[in-house]
Amino acid sequence: MNFQIVRRTLGWLLIVEAIFFALPVFTAIVYGEKEVVYFLVSASLSLSVGIVCFLHKPTNNSLYAKEGFLIVSLSWILMSLFGALPFYLSGTIPSFIDALFETVSGFTTTGATIMSGEMIESASRSILMWRSFTHWLGGMGVLVFLIALLPLSGAKNMHLMKAESTGPVVSKIVPRVKQTAKILYIIYALFTAVECIMLLFGGMSFFEAITTAFSTAGTGGFGIRGDSIGSHSAYIQIVLTVFMILFSLSFTSFYLLFRKKFKEAFTTEIKVFLLIVFVSIVSITLNLYLSPQEGYSYTFGEALRHSSFNVSSIISTTGFVTENFDIWPALSKTLLVLLMFVGACAGSTGGGIKVSRIIILFKGMHFELRRMLHPRQVKKVTIDKRPIDSDVVKNVSVFLVAYILIYAVSMVIVSIDSNDLITNFTAVSATINNVGPGLSLVGPIGNYAFFSPVSKIVLIFDMLAGRLEIFPMLLLLSPATWRKH
Amino acid sequence: MNFQIVRRTLGWLLIVEAIFFALPVFTAIVYGEKEVVYFLVSASLSLSVGIVCFLHKPTNNSLYAKEGFLIVSLSWILMSLFGALPFYLSGTIPSFIDALFETVSGFTTTGATIMSGEMIESASRSILMWRSFTHWLGGMGVLVFLIALLPLSGAKNMHLMKAESTGPVVSKIVPRVKQTAKILYIIYALFTAVECIMLLFGGMSFFEAITTAFSTAGTGGFGIRGDSIGSHSAYIQIVLTVFMILFSLSFTSFYLLFRKKFKEAFTTEIKVFLLIVFVSIVSITLNLYLSPQEGYSYTFGEALRHSSFNVSSIISTTGFVTENFDIWPALSKTLLVLLMFVGACAGSTGGGIKVSRIIILFKGMHFELRRMLHPRQVKKVTIDKRPIDSDVVKNVSVFLVAYILIYAVSMVIVSIDSNDLITNFTAVSATINNVGPGLSLVGPIGNYAFFSPVSKIVLIFDMLAGRLEIFPMLLLLSPATWRKH
Repeated sequence: MNFQIVRRTLGWLLIVEAIFFALPVFTAIVYGEKEVVYFLVSASLSLSVGIVCFLHKPTNNSLYAKEGFLIVSLSWILMSLFGALPFYLSGTIPSFIDALFETVSGFTTTGATIMSGEMIESASRSILMWRSFTHWLGGMGVLVFLIALLPLSGAKNMHLMKAESTGPVVSKIVPRVKQTAKILYIIYALFTAVECIMLLFGGMSFFEAITTAFSTAGTGGFGIRGDSIGSHSAYIQIVLTVFMILFSLSFTSFYLLFRKKFKEAFTTEIKVFLLIVFVSIVSITLNLYLSPQEGYSYTFGEALRHSSFNVSSIISTTGFVTENFDIWPALSKTLLVLLMFVGACAGSTGGGIKVSRIIILFKGMHFELRRMLHPRQVKKVTIDKRPIDSDVVKNVSVFLVAYILIYAVSMVIVSIDSNDLITNFTAVSATINNVGPGLSLVGPIGNYAFFSPVSKIVLIFDMLAGRLEIFPMLLLLSPATWRKH
Repeated sequence: MNFQIVRRTLGWLLIVEAIFFALPVFTAIVYGEKEVVYFLVSASLSLSVGIVCFLHKPTNNSLYAKEGFLIVSLSWILMSLFGALPFYLSGTIPSFIDALFETVSGFTTTGATIMSGEMIESASRSILMWRSFTHWLGGMGVLVFLIALLPLSGAKNMHLMKAESTGPVVSKIVPRVKQTAKILYIIYALFTAVECIMLLFGGMSFFEAITTAFSTAGTGGFGIRGDSIGSHSAYIQIVLTVFMILFSLSFTSFYLLFRKKFKEAFTTEIKVFLLIVFVSIVSITLNLYLSPQEGYSYTFGEALRHSSFNVSSIISTTGFVTENFDIWPALSKTLLVLLMFVGACAGSTGGGIKVSRIIILFKGMHFELRRMLHPRQVKKVTIDKRPIDSDVVKNVSVFLVAYILIYAVSMVIVSIDSNDLITNFTAVSATINNVGPGLSLVGPIGNYAFFSPVSKIVLIFDMLAGRLEIFPMLLLLSPATWRKH
């Protein structure tokens, strides 16, 4: 492991983070809030540590897969540690572990909060701006991450950065990554702006519109009201529903759309995703309308709107809520929980297992079952008419096993707190899939404050594991990663 | 698909089942119970249908993988349909779907019951004997199934019966299967007898000792008392704990032990299994002793005994209970639920995912993670110093995906009943893993009677899918299976 290059890259990242603090500083100045001091202190700290780490040039510039993974996991952890400072220093969140939880939840675009409704509504605007901004930055980070580093875990593209190649590989991929990232960022910023404008049309204040747009774009889910989106108009809820779905789609598809490649843009993954959304909305609407439970009573239109909103929110892993779906009937809750695991499309800002992975798993299974019955008819697994390499199928299977492992271990540790099983089960599900709200104590009207520090650390790990697609966080736990050679 | 050979094999099976009814007939005669009539009627029906199906010789004797799978799934379904007759005809279980549920639960050695405590205690002895006997037969069937048909799903041994071979393959494998099956049956019968004797020493009646031994041997879990094993002495509970663990171990290991091959008998799977059992018992004992909840209060010895018993019962997928673990603290319940999924060793009568599969999944994952970091150091995945073929790893991954698919679909359908999520979740877990009791409404003091017929059919499917290791049941749903060619 070349620790010097890791240190230097992380240093650069902290310098960039210091610049990000400009937005909340600006917000604090505009609203004349005293929090400006805490943001400036946080920015200075981030900048100083960043410069110290960055200054000393490494003797060896080699950057291999293992360094890549370590940089990814440590960068999200470091960003969160420094990003948590304003929450902690300003006293908005008195415990540092809580502040860290909130920031990791922000950057990983999870949206699980330890802040109660009152805490949110009494927080200063600059703090709320930073909180929602972390979602937007996290979403952006994911986009780069997806292009630059995810291929590492697929053996197919591994040659880009793998150990065989000599010398600094970054220079070889940076030009293409930079170009692609630029296009994706433009789409990302454009969509955020359009959403913001449409929210303004609905009568939202500029501050609320921009923070809400940030949260939607990153599929995060932090809101600035205690009841999330519940007290907003039907118009606002519908606009958010549409944008949550848009931000769950693969960004490369938008790029293809802009280049008028309509057929290529409309991939199998997007078709399957939209089908799942449609079926879930219809099922939950009918379930809500036909089996009313105590605590709510919807017209068909309301059932359709709340079903659409919350399905879109959960499958996009945003986590905004309009209603307390914890009191919905079992079928609706079961579907929502399953949607958490499905997640969004690959190459979006959304979390979860991802629709493309699920397609690959099923196609792989179907292929093997066919082979059992008809050993002579061996066809290739294909998606969108392109054959899927067996290494990709294997890689996805490994992902699934690692995911289940982390899931099971988290469940056990969190259960030591002695909360009910639904709370533990959905808290782990909602964090590892970067959704935010779960059921029972972590349901739409609850929050994550009551967990013990140990459980919070586990959930922090899960949020990072979910966002970084498991492997970088798993490698962080391996002793081999920390060896000098 | 050669339907003629399928029909003929199933006919043979029904003739054999008619013979199995001899035991409850004998029991009814001994205790002078009127149920003797219903058993004779059931036996006659089974025999007649069996003979009709068996008589007409097939024109083509070819038996390929697809016929093998179809025979397996249909034989368990047919056995259960005829096996359910005595419960239904005698009026012990008034609904046929309930009677079928109980019989499938018996043959699949699940032990999930729709009978309440009073129903069980008021049932006649011949009915209870048949109920427990289905477990023993199911356990026996699994042993044959494991040897004769499971290799089909592993590509490695597929040549035994696969489509390339011409002519009737059965004759080629029967001698070896017959020989191995004979040894396994002797071990199986021997252990059952020893357990029965040890239970008699504990003061059990002969009737109770033999039914309990049948249930333990098949890792089933049907008891003849309303409170399962709760009202029995500590001695009985400890004897059962030991035998539940014994019946979870691979039977080939016992065979190796008898041949004094101690080293080969003590496989990695068994070591890992025993380690899991040990860690779970210690954790749950401490959890019960240190975090007492309302409803129970254990001395350390009691905590250890109940923890040992219920851990062994769940991981062996037997499902006997001594205590209402639904009121145990969250950590204990979470561990028990996870143990349901782990299950017993491959080649035992126990269910679940099986320890060997879990070892293969983890070794496969570890291997791929290493390959990511050090692409040059490619070593083989090995277990017990033997390399594991990548096809085996792939096969296990496919199993996992199919398992999750069935799991998710079952959860959705069962949730239409609007019971709480823990009930649905553990009902599906306890049936697909062939455990029996779950938590909440299907917990140790509950039963499965309240589910709707649709849910019961889903759970019946799950019990069969779990017992037949997923694929045969999945292929039953495929239209390709039902084509003539």
